Amino acid sequence: MNRYRFEDIKVGLKASFTVKITEEMMNSFRNITGDINPLHTDDDFAVKKGFEGKVAYGMLTASFLSALAGVYLPGENSLIRQVEVKFKKPVFPGDELTVTGEVSDVNEEFKIFDMKVTVVNASGDKVLRGTMQMGVLDA
Amino acid sequence: MNRYRFEDIKVGLKASFTVKITEEMMNSFRNITGDINPLHTDDDFAVKKGFEGKVAYGMLTASFLSALAGVYLPGENSLIRQVEVKFKKPVFPGDELTVTGEVSDVNEEFKIFDMKVTVVNASGDKVLRGTMQMGVLDA
Repeated sequence: MNRYRFEDIKVGLKASFTVKITEEMMNSFRNITGDINPLHTDDDFAVKKGFEGKVAYGMLTASFLSALAGVYLPGENSLIRQVEVKFKKPVFPGDELTVTGEVSDVNEEFKIFDMKVTVVNASGDKVLRGTMQMGVLDA
Repeated sequence: MNRYRFEDIKVGLKASFTVKITEEMMNSFRNITGDINPLHTDDDFAVKKGFEGKVAYGMLTASFLSALAGVYLPGENSLIRQVEVKFKKPVFPGDELTVTGEVSDVNEEFKIFDMKVTVVNASGDKVLRGTMQMGVLDA
């Protein structure tokens, strides 16, 4: 786990990791949230809606931003203040995703920083992009 | 599960449900995401950082927006396009949260709508507020 302090955070600092979306994650996410929508459980339903098969929960993909912040950037001293995400392409169970954050703005006065976030699949398609506003609890 | 069609979606339409944040949800969310940050597992660490005890994952609270959209509003025909959330107050395991969405804008031309979302704890504190931009797959 990284332990960046606020003074270590500079524009351009990056972190990245890769994760595979599994059926087990899909089941756990459904159990946690109660989101029983058939788009995420029923291939036939998803095909009727225009997808190649059942689609991973968008908010499951977004949930990896928790680890991006809490483990990688800034890591231990992380406090997420704000998250904005756009879902650009569907994600499917089995997809391998690369989650990346890059510091885009540092506000010394309020001790917060912004990072641009992207999630890219193994074909190189950007499936999610967004911004997180972070606090650093290094006191 | 609701099955609103696009023509049913009107400004002011609301949906709401209540959920209790459990230790089991915390463990499942950590297993899914790999976010092992001690703020969410270690009371002493969280107290040192200024909280009354270990804090629920912000992105866990946000993950209930998946059910808000996929089960309630619009329900079965849901497709989340964009999510923006601000974490206003900490959530703790054991907290009972009320998740509410209210349609704030309908774009007939592009068949999308916006909803304002709030998550409120049992003390009436708004712990999360934000906006979701939704598509309706009712074709």
